[in-house]
Amino acid sequence: MNFLKVTDIKDIEGLILKKLPSLEGKKEICKLEDSLGRILCENITATLNVPEFNRSTVDGYAIKSKESFGASQGIPAFFTLKGEVLMGENTSKELESGQAIYVPTGAMIPKGADSMIMIEYCEILEDTLLVHKPVSNFENVMLMGEDVKAGDIIFKKGSTITPENVGVLASLGKYKLPVFKKFTFSIISTGDEIIGEDEEYRMGKIRDINSYTLSLAIQKFGIVIEKKIVKDKFETILEEVKKSTENSDIVLISGGSSAGNYDYTSKVISLLDGGEVFVHGISIKPGKPTIIGKSNDKLIFGLPGHPVSSMVVFNIVVKKLIESLYLQENKNDYYYGILSQNVHSTPGRTTYQMINKTIEDDKIIINPIFGKSGMTTLMTKSNGYIILESNIEGLEKGSRVKVYRF
Amino acid sequence: MNFLKVTDIKDIEGLILKKLPSLEGKKEICKLEDSLGRILCENITATLNVPEFNRSTVDGYAIKSKESFGASQGIPAFFTLKGEVLMGENTSKELESGQAIYVPTGAMIPKGADSMIMIEYCEILEDTLLVHKPVSNFENVMLMGEDVKAGDIIFKKGSTITPENVGVLASLGKYKLPVFKKFTFSIISTGDEIIGEDEEYRMGKIRDINSYTLSLAIQKFGIVIEKKIVKDKFETILEEVKKSTENSDIVLISGGSSAGNYDYTSKVISLLDGGEVFVHGISIKPGKPTIIGKSNDKLIFGLPGHPVSSMVVFNIVVKKLIESLYLQENKNDYYYGILSQNVHSTPGRTTYQMINKTIEDDKIIINPIFGKSGMTTLMTKSNGYIILESNIEGLEKGSRVKVYRF
Repeated sequence: MNFLKVTDIKDIEGLILKKLPSLEGKKEICKLEDSLGRILCENITATLNVPEFNRSTVDGYAIKSKESFGASQGIPAFFTLKGEVLMGENTSKELESGQAIYVPTGAMIPKGADSMIMIEYCEILEDTLLVHKPVSNFENVMLMGEDVKAGDIIFKKGSTITPENVGVLASLGKYKLPVFKKFTFSIISTGDEIIGEDEEYRMGKIRDINSYTLSLAIQKFGIVIEKKIVKDKFETILEEVKKSTENSDIVLISGGSSAGNYDYTSKVISLLDGGEVFVHGISIKPGKPTIIGKSNDKLIFGLPGHPVSSMVVFNIVVKKLIESLYLQENKNDYYYGILSQNVHSTPGRTTYQMINKTIEDDKIIINPIFGKSGMTTLMTKSNGYIILESNIEGLEKGSRVKVYRF
Repeated sequence: MNFLKVTDIKDIEGLILKKLPSLEGKKEICKLEDSLGRILCENITATLNVPEFNRSTVDGYAIKSKESFGASQGIPAFFTLKGEVLMGENTSKELESGQAIYVPTGAMIPKGADSMIMIEYCEILEDTLLVHKPVSNFENVMLMGEDVKAGDIIFKKGSTITPENVGVLASLGKYKLPVFKKFTFSIISTGDEIIGEDEEYRMGKIRDINSYTLSLAIQKFGIVIEKKIVKDKFETILEEVKKSTENSDIVLISGGSSAGNYDYTSKVISLLDGGEVFVHGISIKPGKPTIIGKSNDKLIFGLPGHPVSSMVVFNIVVKKLIESLYLQENKNDYYYGILSQNVHSTPGRTTYQMINKTIEDDKIIINPIFGKSGMTTLMTKSNGYIILESNIEGLEKGSRVKVYRF
């Protein structure tokens, strides 16, 4: 394997899509109540006005606003009470001059009325309503279509469903949503030293880490079909990777991508049905020894064995690719802060520096976290990263930096 | 009901815990692979050193670093090859002066060696290793306990499990975690005008919104046992609320908390077994007409019917309470930006102003989003909020403001 032929991080996505043109977000239908975090695969257009009628936003009386002008605590305006509109009633009542009709919050305002006076400012004397405050035109009224207009695109494809935006969909009766089907993943941890949950710990062994970190990261947007540990035996790895390509859309192989004695991943991929390795390393730090290939229409990543490196590659390559396939717009999920110390980078490689944010005197301070890439605590201590482009040598203490969240 | 006796937002949590002292985070055990987003209810202490032995971070040769001093491409240092350490092997080999032993990434470094030279800088001539670069003491070695020291608290109770921190737990073999049990919720939408998924839309009706927005918001940390729509009939509401207190820890009743004709929530709560209403309104905007009560040891919220108001109250009261019960530290989940226009607030009430963030010339611009609180699109357009304390009248355009995410 030749790690000198590294691919620029900017070219990775284009290359994957060129090699696997069939790779795209598949579609499915999802129930509204199960839609948290799902991604729309079509534009959603309003088929109704919301509200469909002029709706009261308070409990009170529908009146003609100009007839309340000048009303005060001392000199009320007088109206004749003409019944009420019931909740949910499609009323045919029409308000005439000098009249007031009771309308509760959310109910329809009768024709002829242009505003609502809250009951707090009213007094009733037999059939007469005394109003102690003037209201202006359309006060306490939500006009037909004011919230959503029929025909408007309310959400573009690529939008994520959140508690905050599900309300509009419910108000329009969109109880079934066209969403992207989640991609399925297999995770294979390779290495003779790696032991799993059911194996007893012995000195010299290392407990499997990457299948847990990757599995939880995938669960944010995809489905983990299986995770397994495979010893460094060529035939076994070949067999297990082959099985996984049959079960999943994407196979992640952790470990076995660097240049050591026991590195089989690249060879394994090339022996699979329709197998080809098309990325032999990426110009990033950490994460350089990453390989990307395919077996027919299944995508295969050989991730570095170091936990931090494998998560960096997962976040900036695998997750970003899925976001692209889901047509997600740039989430703008970054902020700015002041760097607390100098950071060096490796020219020619895009460096992803883990950081930790602290607040001092109302200022956002960005502290780079240094440590060996095999350290599991490195990620734990950090809550984001900064990117040092491949053409710079570092950043100075005090620089204003753009910080990305995980 | 007297909404003049509003409770200050700052006193709400203390009052709830005083009235419901039994309300606390219950515990359960969760499997590591299912732990995404779960909250630890105990400190987690390391029972092992990680690594448990001096571990190589590269594929290469273990040597005594001082014997490589001065080595270069032209003048290599010479070592005698003395076999290899296998992956996962608990080696008893000892390196002597002038020797080199092959050690793959992740494997144990033999006694006597203090550093690793990467294979990229080596050449083999029969039994001799030529090293073309000097290494320093401990280079490419992770020392025993360097990542995690046995006895250290690695996570405090209240910590959330993320893909980034699950790795440490896996490396320590903590496959079962003590976590807070999720609180269970019932959601009841009240109102004659409210129609559900199985009802046909008719003019004058309003599709149920709050049970969807609340349900998705709860799913981020809790369990929705049921959501139902109940018409404004006193006996029916009483019966349904009673059933829900038997099924869930917390009951959310949406609508029916304002001062109109059809407001039963407060009366319903007081008629329940061990029923008491202890908050009759909160000094916030939006969300003032919120009531809080209990039935024995079950907590009941009467949320405003307006979608935006109900979500604001949910986020700043219900969610914050659960975070407290889960011992979660302040998440510092805010950032700063520049206000794009003046914002007015209501003195005496803490105002939660929805905002939308945009980036202009690398500056974070915070745009207040205005709209009637019944508008479902208000939340959709916003991606956070700013807080105007009750003792100020507003904020001027150009102010630096602290922005909270949902």
